[in-house]
Amino acid sequence: MEIGIVAFDDFTDIDVFLPWDILNRVKLPEWTVKIYGTKDLHHSVTGLTVPVHKEVHRLNEATAVLFASGPGIRKLCHNEDYLRQINLDPSRQLIGSMCSGALILGALGLLEGKTATTYPTAKKTLEKFKVNVVEEAFVVHENIATAAGCLAAQDLCGWFIERLINKKVKNSVLKSIQPLGQGLSLS
Amino acid sequence: MEIGIVAFDDFTDIDVFLPWDILNRVKLPEWTVKIYGTKDLHHSVTGLTVPVHKEVHRLNEATAVLFASGPGIRKLCHNEDYLRQINLDPSRQLIGSMCSGALILGALGLLEGKTATTYPTAKKTLEKFKVNVVEEAFVVHENIATAAGCLAAQDLCGWFIERLINKKVKNSVLKSIQPLGQGLSLS
Repeated sequence: MEIGIVAFDDFTDIDVFLPWDILNRVKLPEWTVKIYGTKDLHHSVTGLTVPVHKEVHRLNEATAVLFASGPGIRKLCHNEDYLRQINLDPSRQLIGSMCSGALILGALGLLEGKTATTYPTAKKTLEKFKVNVVEEAFVVHENIATAAGCLAAQDLCGWFIERLINKKVKNSVLKSIQPLGQGLSLS
Repeated sequence: MEIGIVAFDDFTDIDVFLPWDILNRVKLPEWTVKIYGTKDLHHSVTGLTVPVHKEVHRLNEATAVLFASGPGIRKLCHNEDYLRQINLDPSRQLIGSMCSGALILGALGLLEGKTATTYPTAKKTLEKFKVNVVEEAFVVHENIATAAGCLAAQDLCGWFIERLINKKVKNSVLKSIQPLGQGLSLS
């Protein structure tokens, strides 16, 4: 099982790094998390970098795909060369987005006629892809999920883990990042 | 105002990247966030890297200091060469820790005789530094604060922002990362 996180230049730090950390808390030999992109590394809006493990044209190799968010996506969702490289199959892959990452799902036609959520400033653009944008932190339709608001990464990553492994592992992973007393305890 | 995040090798990703993202959401010309360390870059437990902007012996230049967390801290808190380089003044600096980062505050004697919180597996070591470890997500004594559980980074970063700027900016920053509907809304 390989989970692919799609990064790009000008990504929002937390929308790559939080899912990366959460998903890497699954300690099973068959579970791997990879970062997909179009260059050797991508820069965040604040100037940090992530290494790119695989190119986006290989996204069909992933069991699940998470599109991150950030200002850089505003150009990508209108970039035909970029979109043409992305080959997904929602009948066998889980596909999800954080915040404005939904614009890529929209541009690929994966949300047409469906409800979905996104970052408030991306609402109008997402609606142009014939998507019914709703005020929810997390929206699922079969194998496609959209999450909005950085900390909703917990919903999205939890959904991947529960769908691909089980609820027990999901709960254990999400518990491990909560403030003390709400998840882990000292004794 | 400079906020220093202290990184080291084998840091827990989220305990550097989440505070980094939150603190960088403060958009004021006089506000800067820097990463401190002992090398040009540090590796996380999962293999990502952060650039180091300043060496730890310069931590006395920061207005506020946040010690991150991770397995790497278990050696550092007993490393006299490392500890000797860290020169803090809690009478004029705000000093905080995420999870096991409290072990450095403990080793420096900053928590002696006080209550504090830390990651559960670090409790016994912290107690050896004469600290009363309590089951709280966030503990403050004047200019020193300890937070435990990754998402308690919100409490710690919020405290820095409120103490150094004001409550309005703190609320605005923390609101911007909540799941949609709990912070930002579409309309």
